[in-house]
Amino acid sequence: MISRLIEKIQKTAPIVVGLDPQLKFIPEQLLKASYKEIGENPEGVADAIFKFNKGIVDAVYDIIPAVKPQIAMYEVFGIPGLIAFDKTVKYCREKGLVVIGDIKRGDIGSTSAAYAQGHIGSVEIGGKKFRGFEEDFATVNPYLGSDGVKPFIDICNAEDRGIFVLVKTSNPSSGELQDKMVDGAPIYEMMGRMVDEWGKESMDGAYSNVGAVVGATYPEQGKVLRKIMPHTFILVPGYGAQGGKGADLVHFFNEDGLGAIVNSSRGIIAAYTQDKYSKFGAENFADASRAAVLDMKEDILGAIGR
Amino acid sequence: MISRLIEKIQKTAPIVVGLDPQLKFIPEQLLKASYKEIGENPEGVADAIFKFNKGIVDAVYDIIPAVKPQIAMYEVFGIPGLIAFDKTVKYCREKGLVVIGDIKRGDIGSTSAAYAQGHIGSVEIGGKKFRGFEEDFATVNPYLGSDGVKPFIDICNAEDRGIFVLVKTSNPSSGELQDKMVDGAPIYEMMGRMVDEWGKESMDGAYSNVGAVVGATYPEQGKVLRKIMPHTFILVPGYGAQGGKGADLVHFFNEDGLGAIVNSSRGIIAAYTQDKYSKFGAENFADASRAAVLDMKEDILGAIGR
Repeated sequence: MISRLIEKIQKTAPIVVGLDPQLKFIPEQLLKASYKEIGENPEGVADAIFKFNKGIVDAVYDIIPAVKPQIAMYEVFGIPGLIAFDKTVKYCREKGLVVIGDIKRGDIGSTSAAYAQGHIGSVEIGGKKFRGFEEDFATVNPYLGSDGVKPFIDICNAEDRGIFVLVKTSNPSSGELQDKMVDGAPIYEMMGRMVDEWGKESMDGAYSNVGAVVGATYPEQGKVLRKIMPHTFILVPGYGAQGGKGADLVHFFNEDGLGAIVNSSRGIIAAYTQDKYSKFGAENFADASRAAVLDMKEDILGAIGR
Repeated sequence: MISRLIEKIQKTAPIVVGLDPQLKFIPEQLLKASYKEIGENPEGVADAIFKFNKGIVDAVYDIIPAVKPQIAMYEVFGIPGLIAFDKTVKYCREKGLVVIGDIKRGDIGSTSAAYAQGHIGSVEIGGKKFRGFEEDFATVNPYLGSDGVKPFIDICNAEDRGIFVLVKTSNPSSGELQDKMVDGAPIYEMMGRMVDEWGKESMDGAYSNVGAVVGATYPEQGKVLRKIMPHTFILVPGYGAQGGKGADLVHFFNEDGLGAIVNSSRGIIAAYTQDKYSKFGAENFADASRAAVLDMKEDILGAIGR
């Protein structure tokens, strides 16, 4: 699966649009229309979420390789929200996009296996295979050790899918645990070495289907991790709204110009609310998102000299 | 919320039934009936799951304080599975049980807030509050540090709910990260101290609404953590099928006979498949579950001398 993502990156850019439709980002006219048609309730919001996502995807699918829906932003609305997540994943796949489910699951063995089957694999019922959700990649939390990660890798190998394991997250308090020193090195380095090892079981060309998450907000750590994990693709959140810039991200990439994919969520999907793109207005939110993607593309490709 | 759980424990026992309905545990007659009525598909399985859970809950609700549905076992069947999760949570609450959603969520601030709202809190739409799912407690993964945990604590305080933060998990590889030494102490002790600190913000009587998860499979570590976190309720998975026994669990409890609640999943819900309870047969799976709960109660109460 990583080879498919790389192929799409080479035709476009190493960027991913985070489809994290918080209520406050959804343009008023979409909410009003859905409330009128369906009701001012979770079902109405879920309808508006899908229309919002569809508008953005239709405007940018030809210039990006992948999307990353954050499932929490759907799960918060219960079943109707998760139906919107499912529809979004399916729609993005129809448009040819690689879908990274930002689900950060991780549990003991049999339970992680269920998450892996449900999101990137399938279940067998009466000899027939069914998919729960239909992501291509999922993000995985490694707090439980190999037991919690290996069931995902098994699915990657069996069904040609991928994962990104949390190594150094973008948030301010990530260091409380991840920066602590163990045997003379910080935990994120230890996790990086574990991801590198796990990745050897799932190579797909020059890179592994087992990737890592390293926040744009920690460029120095990214530089170190790039060297520790030479065959690992890095998913880089934290660009834009969380403070990361293209120039900070150079060292997340390998010399082949590959090895990283940078996510922006609100910077793209809520571009219409920023001064820079305010001329578009809420009516043309999708055009604002396209303009923001083009600017991000220029920033990132400029920084890595592509 | 912890005071409500304690009140129910005092009337019954410090045990919780894990509603983790793997396909292989569901009695054949339930599956056949649901397949016939609905179809041999995820919707059919979800129907059987709910009937299986309902059978067990109806048989044991008067002798237990709480249930712990593991959401992965529902999520694996996609939307129909999650609808069965939602129905199970609601049904258990109707029967007066405390519901611990074993969801192991955790993310950066705004995203953790969405998970917290969706599972133990609520969202506001048009000035009206809606609940996504309706658990009383949720389990939380602390890999991202305080940023990822505090939004859950805010909801605990605002809406009188609770959480259990992963400290030392029951699985064999939990030590790969959790046992590593940081400043002369293992990480699970460091996390225990963090949980103790977080818990001070959310006291509810003698105990905090912020609890911890410590596996029954690690009794020595449980003994140490009990002392580090005197006001923290410990959710103890790993009893029974994973190898833990009542006598191993004495030190998870405080001298007041409280401070811990022990989970058993397949040991209860799939009791009918064990030699010990085989006389019940698959038809009477719920009676087998009740017998297994009574045996577990005797084992645990005997060990703690209540």
